[in-house]
Parts: sequence; C-alpha cells; structure tokens
Amino acid sequence: MAVGKGGLPKFHVIDGVRLGVAKSGIKYADRKDLVIFELAEGSTCAGVFTKNAFCAAPVVLSKENLTANSPRYLLINTGNANAGTGAQGMEDALECCQALSDLANVPSNAILPFSTGVIGEALPVQAIVAGLPEALSALSQSAWGDAAEGIMTTDTRPKGASRVVDIAGHKVSVSGISKGAGMIMPNMATMLGFVATDANIDQVLLQEILTECADLSFNRITIDGDTSTNDSCILVATGKSTAPKLERGSSELAQFTTELKALFLELAQAIVRDGEGATKFVSVVVEGAQNKQEALDVAYTVAHSPLVKTALFACDPNWGRILAAVGRAGLSELDLEAIIIHLDEVCIVSNGGRDLEYTEARGQEVMNREEISIRIQLGRGDVSETIWTTDLSHEYVTINAEYRT
Amino acid sequence: MAVGKGGLPKFHVIDGVRLGVAKSGIKYADRKDLVIFELAEGSTCAGVFTKNAFCAAPVVLSKENLTANSPRYLLINTGNANAGTGAQGMEDALECCQALSDLANVPSNAILPFSTGVIGEALPVQAIVAGLPEALSALSQSAWGDAAEGIMTTDTRPKGASRVVDIAGHKVSVSGISKGAGMIMPNMATMLGFVATDANIDQVLLQEILTECADLSFNRITIDGDTSTNDSCILVATGKSTAPKLERGSSELAQFTTELKALFLELAQAIVRDGEGATKFVSVVVEGAQNKQEALDVAYTVAHSPLVKTALFACDPNWGRILAAVGRAGLSELDLEAIIIHLDEVCIVSNGGRDLEYTEARGQEVMNREEISIRIQLGRGDVSETIWTTDLSHEYVTINAEYRT
Repeated sequence: MAVGKGGLPKFHVIDGVRLGVAKSGIKYADRKDLVIFELAEGSTCAGVFTKNAFCAAPVVLSKENLTANSPRYLLINTGNANAGTGAQGMEDALECCQALSDLANVPSNAILPFSTGVIGEALPVQAIVAGLPEALSALSQSAWGDAAEGIMTTDTRPKGASRVVDIAGHKVSVSGISKGAGMIMPNMATMLGFVATDANIDQVLLQEILTECADLSFNRITIDGDTSTNDSCILVATGKSTAPKLERGSSELAQFTTELKALFLELAQAIVRDGEGATKFVSVVVEGAQNKQEALDVAYTVAHSPLVKTALFACDPNWGRILAAVGRAGLSELDLEAIIIHLDEVCIVSNGGRDLEYTEARGQEVMNREEISIRIQLGRGDVSETIWTTDLSHEYVTINAEYRT
Repeated sequence: MAVGKGGLPKFHVIDGVRLGVAKSGIKYADRKDLVIFELAEGSTCAGVFTKNAFCAAPVVLSKENLTANSPRYLLINTGNANAGTGAQGMEDALECCQALSDLANVPSNAILPFSTGVIGEALPVQAIVAGLPEALSALSQSAWGDAAEGIMTTDTRPKGASRVVDIAGHKVSVSGISKGAGMIMPNMATMLGFVATDANIDQVLLQEILTECADLSFNRITIDGDTSTNDSCILVATGKSTAPKLERGSSELAQFTTELKALFLELAQAIVRDGEGATKFVSVVVEGAQNKQEALDVAYTVAHSPLVKTALFACDPNWGRILAAVGRAGLSELDLEAIIIHLDEVCIVSNGGRDLEYTEARGQEVMNREEISIRIQLGRGDVSETIWTTDLSHEYVTINAEYRT
C-alpha cells in the first residue's frame, strides 16, 4: 500500500557526482543492494544523523570521518544494518571502507559508510567487498534511478526528487534520493536521504542549511514514532556549477535554500506516502501556539495517537479522539474553549465541543479522502508547525508482526 | 480477548457502603448502566482524576464537590461520557445530581457524578433520572458484583478485588471495582476505579494514600498511551470498623497501605489483562536508573513502541526493537554497553548487542508465553520502576477502527 503518486522524476545530473550500483547478494540474490556515490575532489559535505543513543557502527564511523576528512565516497549497503553488533560491527565497517579506499585510491576516512537492514547480525563484509568492483565500474552521472532502487529495503517504491534553479543567470541542479517505510524497522531498518547539488557552498554553511532543511522535512514526518538506529541524511555540494559561490546572507542563498527545502520535503513526504500499511497521507497543522515546542508537542501527540490513527484508517471523523489527544499533549493552561479543529475545510471542534455547524456527513466526506489535513488552532500565540503522518492499519500490524516469521 | 484469569472475587461487605444498580436504557436496553454508591455519614472520601486538559463535565463537577462537601453518594452512568458537551454538559451533570439529591435528601454537592461512554453526545438526563428510584431501591451492602458489571463499557469482563486485613486484632475490609479496556476510547471511554474500606482515616491522609496507591497502579498501566477525558479513581473510608483510627506514621497505617496498594494493583492489572485486543500481559521493569523519571521514560517508550508491541503480538523475540526503544527514550549519556535486557529469565542484550549466550530458540520459548516480563537494567543508578502493558494486535485495530461503523 502507498498513498498518492509514486514513480521517480527525471533526475538532473550533478556535475561532480557519479553513482554506481551492484548486486552483491548481501541478503537476497539478484537484488541491487550496494550503492556508491563518488564525489569530486573539492566537494563539501554535510550530514545529520539519528538521535537514537543506540547508533549503528556505520553512523558512528560516518560522523567521525565527516569531521576528519573531506568525503570522496558514500558507501551504502542494504540487507544488513550493522547495528547492535558491538566492537565487531565497527571493525566490519572499517574493513569495508578500507577495501573501497584501496580500490579507489583515497584515504579510508574519506569514505562515509551507511547500512540499512537486519539489526544484530554480523555485516557480510566479504559480499560487500566482492561487490565493490562491480559498483565502481558502473559509476555514472546518470545512475540516480538505479541508486534510488539500490537503497530500498521494505519500501514499495523508489523515492527521488530533482530540480534546477536559476541562480543569477546560472543553472544550479539538485538531485536526491531517500528510503524508509517505517521510522525504524530493526529487521529492515532506517530512513536514509542523499542529496547532491553542483552549487558552490562552504562546508560550515552547508551544514547549517542541511540542518535547517532536515528539520523541516525528515524531522517533521512520523509513521509510528519509532526512531531508527541508522537514520542518516547527507548533503553534498560539488561546486561544479558556473554559478557564483553562495554566500551567507545573500539573496541567492535564500533562493537556493527555498528550493532545497521543497526538494527535501518531497523526499520526506515520499517516505510517509510509502509508510508501512499507509492508506492515508495526513498533514497535522498546529497554529496559534506560543512556541515551536508546544506546537510540535500537540502535533506529535495527535500524530502518534493509536486512536486517532485507527480512526483515520476507518475513515471515521472521530473528533473526540483528536480533541482528547490535544488535551493530553501536556500544554499548561490550555483553553479548550479557544481551540478550533478542522478536517480539511470542515470545522469539527469549536467552543470545547463539536462545532455547531458540523454534521457527520460532512466529516465523513473529508475522511473518505486519501489525503487529509488535520488543522488545530490553539488560539494562544502565533507559532505554526506542520508534520506529516499516516494512519494505523491492519497492514501495519501485519508487516511488523509477521515480518520475521 | 483477555489475558489470564478473570472472574470476580468474593467481595467483603464494607459497613457504611451500599450499592444499587439499575437498567436505565441510557444507550442499550436491558443493560446495567446506572450505579449508585451510598456512603454513610461521616465517611471520608478522596479522589484522583484525569490529567487530560480536556476534562469531561462530571470530572469537573466531582472535583468541585469533593472539596465543597463530604460525599454521600457516587452516581455513575455508562453509555455516555458527557464529555465535549460544553456548558450543556455541566447543566446536565448538575441536573442528575439534583435529582438524586431530591430523592435521597442530601445536598446536591454531596454527590459525585461519573460518566463513561460516547463522547460529544448530550447526556440522556431523563433516562438517568428515571432510573434513580430503581437504583436506590436496590441499595444493598452486597451488590459489589452487580456494580462491577454496571460500570462496564467495552470491558469483556467485570473487575473487582477484595481483602480483609487484621489491624491490631480488628478486622478491616477493603473492596473495589474498576473498569477500562483502552486508556481512552472516546466512544466508550474511560478508566474508573471505586474502592471502599471500613477503616477510619481522616480525609487529608486518605487523599495522600490514594495518590500513592493510584500512582503505583492506575498510573503505571498503559494500553495505547492515550489518556481518557474521564479517568477517575475514588477511595472511601467509612470508619465503621472497630479498628483504631489509622494515624500518620503508625505501623498500622503502613500495614493497611501495603494491602491497599496490592488491591489497587489487582484492579489496575485487571484493566491491562482486559486491554483492547490484548493477547499478552507484559511487565516492563526498568532497573538501575538514576531517578524515577528516567526509569519511567524508558519504560513508557518501550511500552508504547508500536514495533515492540507488534513483535509481542507476533511472539517475536525481536531484541533490536527493545534496545532501539531504550535508545530513543531521551536519556543523556546513556552507556549502551552497560545495558542488560532480559525477557523473563533469558538474557537477550548485553554489551551493546545480542547476548552471546542468547539463542533464538530460548527467546522464542519466552515470547510464546501469555505473561512476559521485559527487564531492562540501565546500570547507572539504583532506582527501579515497573509498568504494565499489552501487545498491539489486529484485534486492537479492529476494535478501534470499526467501533463506530
């Protein structure tokens, strides 16, 4: 199941980035499971990683290498997360980087490793190492679609986004791919995002932009509230475009960042649309909050409520469940009478109860839609936040209960 | 579905408490839906209520009346929660109290009202008022079992507990009933608990004891993380026992409180065992925490994780999901290598990964059990906390997705 349109876009090539994909038989035969990004010398690279204290070995190593050297390769495998693997896991991640380092003649710490798949099983280093030559020989600027497929695990479809921006009369391209279907699936785990541009941006600024973009996209989606051990998102800028360097505070940077945010949102929302068992794509919009944190507290409490999620699955306009979730979000001195809640254009709650104009028929009409917005106006400030989520279906339980059996 | 033994105990009568039950046709014909507790003059009464900001009208009124007067009656209806009903809801609750006040010749504010059932629909005051004479004429010291049935909504079985304590050579009795099957079901909502004893305890002390008992029982259970708008728990002490008054700091009070805690735990656990769609009764024990809050943060993160809950439903010893949930509980400077996790007697995690002695067969053997303990040793302090929860099954989704249809 997946909600809304899928399919990959036409990817714009990013000068300075080549991608290679191999079938190395890590977990399944005849499946693309090894992806290499080759980054031109002089590229800058930024990363954001899972906040789960239980970090997989490749996350630990990627964070280290990102500060130690300028990355020249991203090395991504599916089929095994190399998480919960203790000291051996780190040795295995290092061994894979060393093997690519030897073949590509770059320092080992110029490689960022990423793994996604089964937790707690030893990384099949030999299969990965054996697959490297195939991936390297396949390197091409136009393999974005293959790469999008090569990082999939339980995803039902590949995810990508691409756009071209005109910056001061020069063409700047951005392409990206993402994967993920639950926020964490320790058997077949993780959200990953890899985005590259030929813009010229220094590393410190790039990291700031990535943090901002990820915060408004990958950090605003939730399927089941679980956070992966392996979540990673990387932004590369090769500087190969003819456009001038993007400087802090410039209108060109603002223009570029706006486009980049939109692209990140596309990639993040594609994960929600492909959420495990998803039959709905739901925007939870909280307006009139006093600050960002309370807006997010309300939004996530509603988005994680099993009762709200099962009502969405049932197309049941159960406004009481939404109001009750708002009520337990922990906001002090919440004025229930001031709260207004809409399902798309239909007002369902006002004055502390069901809106007087509301009819079950109007609520039902909205709930039957595949894409729904729950808009909660708190009426106590001027801060807004939006997050995206799915419903909770039988298929979700089936996927997560029966996966290993 | 329900886990473990059900059935009501032999209730000990509580001198000073009589119960009356009626079928008033609030939502269904021929169903016990109205329960009255009559409390002897001079009884003390304490209450704890939902922390949801979205409080139902009867909760607001009960809290007010509890401070305004000494309660003489508890008036409980099922079939309608009188929540999300705005100003009309409060008028309706007052009208029901007034009707009982007239019939029983006590002040209206000596009545505590409780409602559970559909949210957002007007309370059928006339049906309730019309049922009062039947409930009053049925008043009896021995109607505890009828009362336990009379407060049920989607519960699959009535819940009660009763015991006798010897205090300084005198018999002191405690009896209680509870209801609830999801923490909140805004169609048929709410956790309720009513406990009475013939002990002699002043009101201030009784409130302290109730808060302590509820904190370790009703506040330590979770089915889906949702908090009802109507949750209420009441403790009554009639003082009719021949035992001496229980004074602060006395060994008699300590002995009584120990028994009371055990009875509260029985009532609370009965709700978990009857949890919506429950196929497992799960204890989540967190040891070695630095403080109570972080122990509870870890316990609830594990207990609410849809991935842990679906793994429990599938009898899948998926230790990675438990470890990942611990990792995202928000504890700073968590030493993953120090964490030890057991499923009952089987160690599944140590040194940051799967325990070396662990085998899938041993894990499977535990997971096949109907009652399971997940014990998480954090190794960073000496505080322990335990909570109780259920799995997440297809039946849960069915109940909550299809209830209104």
